[in-house]
Amino acid sequence: MLAEIADVMENVRAKTPLVHCITNYVTINDCANILLCFGASPAMCDARKEAVEFISHASALYINMGTFTEEQEEAAFSASLRAAELNVPVVIDPVACGVISRRMQAARKLLDVARITVIKGNTGEIKALAGYEARVRGVDSLDEGEDALEACVNLARKYNTVVAATGKTDIVTDGIRTCLIHNGTPMLSRITGGGCMAGALAAAAAGSFADGWAAAAAGVAVMALAGETAARASGPFPGKFRVKLFDSLYTMTREDIMKGGRVECI
Amino acid sequence: MLAEIADVMENVRAKTPLVHCITNYVTINDCANILLCFGASPAMCDARKEAVEFISHASALYINMGTFTEEQEEAAFSASLRAAELNVPVVIDPVACGVISRRMQAARKLLDVARITVIKGNTGEIKALAGYEARVRGVDSLDEGEDALEACVNLARKYNTVVAATGKTDIVTDGIRTCLIHNGTPMLSRITGGGCMAGALAAAAAGSFADGWAAAAAGVAVMALAGETAARASGPFPGKFRVKLFDSLYTMTREDIMKGGRVECI
Amino acid sequence: MLAEIADVMENVRAKTPLVHCITNYVTINDCANILLCFGASPAMCDARKEAVEFISHASALYINMGTFTEEQEEAAFSASLRAAELNVPVVIDPVACGVISRRMQAARKLLDVARITVIKGNTGEIKALAGYEARVRGVDSLDEGEDALEACVNLARKYNTVVAATGKTDIVTDGIRTCLIHNGTPMLSRITGGGCMAGALAAAAAGSFADGWAAAAAGVAVMALAGETAARASGPFPGKFRVKLFDSLYTMTREDIMKGGRVECI
Repeated sequence: MLAEIADVMENVRAKTPLVHCITNYVTINDCANILLCFGASPAMCDARKEAVEFISHASALYINMGTFTEEQEEAAFSASLRAAELNVPVVIDPVACGVISRRMQAARKLLDVARITVIKGNTGEIKALAGYEARVRGVDSLDEGEDALEACVNLARKYNTVVAATGKTDIVTDGIRTCLIHNGTPMLSRITGGGCMAGALAAAAAGSFADGWAAAAAGVAVMALAGETAARASGPFPGKFRVKLFDSLYTMTREDIMKGGRVECI
Repeated sequence: MLAEIADVMENVRAKTPLVHCITNYVTINDCANILLCFGASPAMCDARKEAVEFISHASALYINMGTFTEEQEEAAFSASLRAAELNVPVVIDPVACGVISRRMQAARKLLDVARITVIKGNTGEIKALAGYEARVRGVDSLDEGEDALEACVNLARKYNTVVAATGKTDIVTDGIRTCLIHNGTPMLSRITGGGCMAGALAAAAAGSFADGWAAAAAGVAVMALAGETAARASGPFPGKFRVKLFDSLYTMTREDIMKGGRVECI
Repeated sequence: MLAEIADVMENVRAKTPLVHCITNYVTINDCANILLCFGASPAMCDARKEAVEFISHASALYINMGTFTEEQEEAAFSASLRAAELNVPVVIDPVACGVISRRMQAARKLLDVARITVIKGNTGEIKALAGYEARVRGVDSLDEGEDALEACVNLARKYNTVVAATGKTDIVTDGIRTCLIHNGTPMLSRITGGGCMAGALAAAAAGSFADGWAAAAAGVAVMALAGETAARASGPFPGKFRVKLFDSLYTMTREDIMKGGRVECI
């Protein structure tokens, strides 16, 4: 699995996928910069009248509902419907869908009408979307329940998609193949945007690699591994950690993944 | 007073207040990250159709008018009215209210119809809001006039609220109790977001500590003190200063406040 | 020419021009911070109901179409029309105008109805706007074609304006005078916002210096030179580079420009 993750990273670097992002304004700069560090080309295009035109240029579409203005909502639906026609992979991040009913409705409607390649959320969001009771707190998950794996598998099968749930251990499944990613650092929860950036990377990966499951695993894994490396270099300093996070991903080698990756296929 | 400020900080860290922010897109990432460094949980939720639902999960509401889209304006009014029903403290930052008439109108209307726990602005904004002549320049205050203290006290009494005016010396008053915060550094005016972050911290504090006056003083004081510490560590480099600012707040101890705080109750 | 660029920088620092920005939400924080590092006062004011009032306080207007919401579009038109009446210089950055038809229409309409002092874009955007075939990829230019100079000159003459095209070599022309800026570093394409920041700096310069051509050249040149200095100090680390970029501009001296500038008047 680690070799496949490294392959995905090398594919991204070789192909420079254009990732069309409709994403929240809190971490939009972080998402653009982390995509550049991964080797992708970010394009944040969320205007109502532009998204459906722009998606035809994109290798992948990333929809993150973190600050979901009404203009963004319209752009997300029109772009994702067009993406299905164009066979462009779509990654959605249903931020806070366990807390805000409009987000849950929008996420379910997107899953119903569009073709979603990957659903990336924290464990609480994924459980809520799968119809399980979830422990969430605003945009944070407090949930690492034992039914998380079951929820991921059920959600993946229901929508014939890949589900990536981030938490202490990340879970990535397409309903048949499942891997657990044991990399990561508590420092990623001391800054905003860790989850958003992982979703953006998964989109870049899906835009360069045909297997959505491996792509999602790669996006989530390189983010977690970059976090680990950055945490080792920065100590308990979130400001310094953020700087090193970008640098760690930018300088990540195949060997770093092969030696540092802790990914378990189950 | 310093002990009380340290108590507020420890309350925030113990309670992890969820701070619902409707805030400008310039410094929205800075506000989220500084809240995390303070020990709070930020949630930037400014969609028209979501804010009134989301406020029921929040410990405090922070409304910053820095880039006040029409969707944000509707969200701010509906969320603050619901906050009053739920007894959730509300901190407003009427950015540029001395220059833009729509901001002044919105701030006054919020003060009339909602229950505002703290008004946080720079000295020029507070003076303008209190009906004094103010020297402002865009989003910056050029004002440190001798009538600033009087303006703060009058404004606090008029609306039965706490007023925090930031400047070379910060003033925090509830109309009866007043403290002056002498901490700070000119480097905070070499980066964007110092005032916004202080307001967000005041909201976190108000969400964890019943006395709004002490909470506002704590939010403003820890920001100023973190700035001082960061400036000592970074020299005349705004980029480095920004990184250290987050780290200084994250690692701030009770002792740092007791030794470094320069707060005068008058 | 280098002496003139240094003069512009000193003018900005002496006059602290207030730069009214209607700019994208990806790099809005970077633009505010780089303007502060240059010695200007940034004010991000893009609400429909505010922009036309606020422009009367501004030294310059910067319109960047990177995430062009409908509210921003209305603000951009009303503010730029008022700017013409007030004789306030306007710098536009028609991001992705070669790819998104709405952007091209908006840019052309602005050029028709308002008085634009500087058009700042990457080479691909400028060529597209000038009616040449351009090689673009989302928000990136792949174009360094030999007809770039011709496109810049033609565009400048057509609209009686200054054109600044950024690329490996930057071109700044008013249709008569032309300079080539050979400063820069590939690291500026490893982070988001390099082009946006250069445009914002050009606006600050145009707000403090009557000659729009020299102002545009100065904005673009100091950005490229700050990038060079930052790249030398940071190695292949985009996170570190971003921190140093702000510090390099903030500490830039007249001598740095005289010794490090590589500007060729042709």
